[in-house]
Amino acid sequence: MLTDIEIAQAATLLPIHNVAEKLGLSAEAWLPYGHHIAKLTQATVSKLQQQPARAKLILVTAISPTPAGEGKTTTTIGLTDALNHAGYPAMACLREPSMGPVFGMKGGATGGGYAQVVPMENINLHFTGDFHAISAANNLLAALIDNHIYHGNALGFEHVSWRRCMDMNDRALRRVTLDHEVHTGFDITVASEVMAIFCLATDLQDLTARLGRIQVGSNAAGNPIFASDLQAEGAMTALLKDAFQPNLVQTLAGSPALVHGGPFANIAHGCNSLVATRSALRLADYVVTEAGFGADLGAEKFMDIKCRQSGLRPDVAVLVATVRALKYHGGIEVADLNNEHLDALQAGLANLKKHLDNLHHQFGLPVLVALNHFSHDTEAEVALVDAAVQSWGYQMHVCKHWANGASGASDLAKALVTQLSQASTGARLAYADDVALEEKLALVARQIYGADGVAFSPAAQAQLHALAAASQGLPVCVAKTQYSFSCDPKQRNVPVGHTLLVRELRLARGAGFVVAICGDIMTMPGLPKQPASIRIGVAADGKISGLS
Amino acid sequence: MLTDIEIAQAATLLPIHNVAEKLGLSAEAWLPYGHHIAKLTQATVSKLQQQPARAKLILVTAISPTPAGEGKTTTTIGLTDALNHAGYPAMACLREPSMGPVFGMKGGATGGGYAQVVPMENINLHFTGDFHAISAANNLLAALIDNHIYHGNALGFEHVSWRRCMDMNDRALRRVTLDHEVHTGFDITVASEVMAIFCLATDLQDLTARLGRIQVGSNAAGNPIFASDLQAEGAMTALLKDAFQPNLVQTLAGSPALVHGGPFANIAHGCNSLVATRSALRLADYVVTEAGFGADLGAEKFMDIKCRQSGLRPDVAVLVATVRALKYHGGIEVADLNNEHLDALQAGLANLKKHLDNLHHQFGLPVLVALNHFSHDTEAEVALVDAAVQSWGYQMHVCKHWANGASGASDLAKALVTQLSQASTGARLAYADDVALEEKLALVARQIYGADGVAFSPAAQAQLHALAAASQGLPVCVAKTQYSFSCDPKQRNVPVGHTLLVRELRLARGAGFVVAICGDIMTMPGLPKQPASIRIGVAADGKISGLS
Repeated sequence: MLTDIEIAQAATLLPIHNVAEKLGLSAEAWLPYGHHIAKLTQATVSKLQQQPARAKLILVTAISPTPAGEGKTTTTIGLTDALNHAGYPAMACLREPSMGPVFGMKGGATGGGYAQVVPMENINLHFTGDFHAISAANNLLAALIDNHIYHGNALGFEHVSWRRCMDMNDRALRRVTLDHEVHTGFDITVASEVMAIFCLATDLQDLTARLGRIQVGSNAAGNPIFASDLQAEGAMTALLKDAFQPNLVQTLAGSPALVHGGPFANIAHGCNSLVATRSALRLADYVVTEAGFGADLGAEKFMDIKCRQSGLRPDVAVLVATVRALKYHGGIEVADLNNEHLDALQAGLANLKKHLDNLHHQFGLPVLVALNHFSHDTEAEVALVDAAVQSWGYQMHVCKHWANGASGASDLAKALVTQLSQASTGARLAYADDVALEEKLALVARQIYGADGVAFSPAAQAQLHALAAASQGLPVCVAKTQYSFSCDPKQRNVPVGHTLLVRELRLARGAGFVVAICGDIMTMPGLPKQPASIRIGVAADGKISGLS
Repeated sequence: MLTDIEIAQAATLLPIHNVAEKLGLSAEAWLPYGHHIAKLTQATVSKLQQQPARAKLILVTAISPTPAGEGKTTTTIGLTDALNHAGYPAMACLREPSMGPVFGMKGGATGGGYAQVVPMENINLHFTGDFHAISAANNLLAALIDNHIYHGNALGFEHVSWRRCMDMNDRALRRVTLDHEVHTGFDITVASEVMAIFCLATDLQDLTARLGRIQVGSNAAGNPIFASDLQAEGAMTALLKDAFQPNLVQTLAGSPALVHGGPFANIAHGCNSLVATRSALRLADYVVTEAGFGADLGAEKFMDIKCRQSGLRPDVAVLVATVRALKYHGGIEVADLNNEHLDALQAGLANLKKHLDNLHHQFGLPVLVALNHFSHDTEAEVALVDAAVQSWGYQMHVCKHWANGASGASDLAKALVTQLSQASTGARLAYADDVALEEKLALVARQIYGADGVAFSPAAQAQLHALAAASQGLPVCVAKTQYSFSCDPKQRNVPVGHTLLVRELRLARGAGFVVAICGDIMTMPGLPKQPASIRIGVAADGKISGLS
């Protein structure tokens, strides 16, 4: 069997101008980065945003995942290809991969099998440099803060909350002590507030304004100090302005895809950039996008943060499930997932139902199940899932895009088009802007996570009080494990009797949300004992091997 | 008077394919990065390296500079433009700017006035991402080291010498303590050994081999541990492979320029990449390149490191001088440099003569003086310099490319072409490969710096002993101040009676040299009280202001 990189390298790619032409974009509308990557120009993005959106927006999300992931990215790509194959002009909107996991355990994030975006080596490594630009903007702000203190501290910093970042899994940088005995640390770039701002800003002016609003610390009186107090936002915008232009690439089947921005979905809001989604909605008839991790994290934040701030609303949701993950939720261990276990599968279906009901009843979305097929899935297992989904009043489609490309997702594509020709039920958010922060958390905990309620650590309780005014009107971004509806990654399926324990609250004033940190959530991952980097190499002609 | 960025933004740039066509490069030979930047492909670089070099190589260097710099980059650009203007196909080879100084005091490094490489905003900010790739490769290695120790330390690290890096002036990161009580720190990216390796490697295989040879620490027995022991070099090469392709841009006058790599010239060897220089020598008749800081640092390292390792030899040197800097060496303070001071100028000429004699007698190079003209220079001052230079048997040409572009350097260009039509005297290096390290240092100290000799701190003395075997055959890279022939930046002009005091020796095994740290030399700069970042901003249409 060919590896992902072998499939990608064997493909013949369209010159990017052909991909742009499919979207009706003239040669002036984009900038080339090599022959297979382009950035839409700022002028193009501005012009598109003045037009009405024409596309239907399809949100791809998933059940609570296993560590391997359930295939949201491949489904997003396969579905886009299937729509185009059936004659419905479609494009994908995806997040850019972080390089941290590329050298760690998980590998890249460009899909897999015959559902990939390409050139995969470039997209997984540096791509057009967007994440480096975000790191640089983040770290310029950090340098300006310490430099300000060094030169006399006129603003009276007593506490600095701003951390540095790097697009690397580097455990040793989680906590560092600077020379002047200041304790700080590095986050992975995708966990930075600058990344969230980048993905939520509507244009360069909004980007600058949001960057200026970042709270970087406080003075002895406890009053906040902002990036704008350091006059940092102009230079930060200068560092971000090229990156802010969405990246255009193609799938293996030649479908256009915008791959732009990439906040993590546990610590941050987990969606590609707003400017990419808005542009895509004016360039195709169907836009397929994904939100990170399970629907409790990614889809909830897509709705309550990205849609709330931007006015966007998805027309339909696709919930990706796998027989493997459902068996895992039913109690089977990872090593045993290749074997048929109908009882465990039956039990694990509860996880699927809870996510379906959340999407349909809490967010008011039509929702279809995409069963991402693996070769070890038995007919009986697939039939069991199908029967259950039908009995709940939803429909399910088996997807084999990983093995078969576009044709593997054609049933799903046809069903979606039919669904989208019907009147939408009307998407809604999980809570209103004007309820109190603790009530927003309680609503998400009870309605989405199935928790009994929310509790706060003494520190979080104090922060809740301190942030009462500043947090008014802002949505909440829950940072918790992706492996469970609860805060405990070991509680699979649909845990009951749990409470959402908020350990810490952080105001992300520029991003426009409050982060509620629940449980042990990492803002800087580590590498495994055998990092993926060991397998990666480059031949004399420049051909990369070992990426996955 | 227009600022540099205003001049650059007012210019009409050629599409980069027109620049490539001037060099005889077909559309397949390069990759576009926007409409005004290209990278020569790896295949193009490989093919070119198999051809014989056809161009004359002109090395632009300078007298001991003032903090403002004396105009090596503008002279390199102006001279290239003047050669092309006179019908001699020429191209420039320059270093990429570091972003650290862009936000600090000095500003960018793309020339100035009417002698600039463009697009200046891109080249000064991120450019094609090369420095970010170098930082990532450097920091992946650091992460792999700490990860290896975390997972059991099978290699037995007792001491880790490898540091992280960032392309930022961030004083606070000079010394940091990691969580496990390890003391380390960050260097600016341009001071990293990965940068030096990148600029000295002949091809991807050599790049990989050099990266594997990096010594990252030692075990309890004092035995070295290498990057290859961590199997890091393949992934590091994967991170560097796109960056390793030279960047093609243009001057304001449309001359082609390769801008690639950029090690600092005090701590590192201060020359653009070897692959860029070698490519240029096969694409034009005249290649004009610069070496960083004064000739005691940049030109010496160009000869003794870059030329020694690669076999390259320059055909002629151009020594850039300014009336201002000569008066400064004659004792005038910066605030008073706009006024005529003939006595001080006369005294300061000694600095010029010492550099001229070094280039001519020590390195065997024909050398011409380019007097980079400033508006406050008086006729009497210019005449004084001219008479002195002639009396020493050299020739001088007044250059006004900053104000006038190509025509400002036409006299210099004509004189150079005449000079290059004569037989070369034969360039030579300052020392042989096989003399001992302390003797190499003594030769450079006495012959180039005019020192009485070399001395070693007790630590350096011990390192000299420890490195005796490993340093055999390697050149030495002296890290010292650029403001003086001595190690003391306050000793202007031609100090006498000084000794080169080596504080520390560091083996850069991958780069293939030994760094001798002399005096207080910074591997991570800081920002000034009013950083340049404060003035930088972006308009709604994406136009950057305030860069310099």
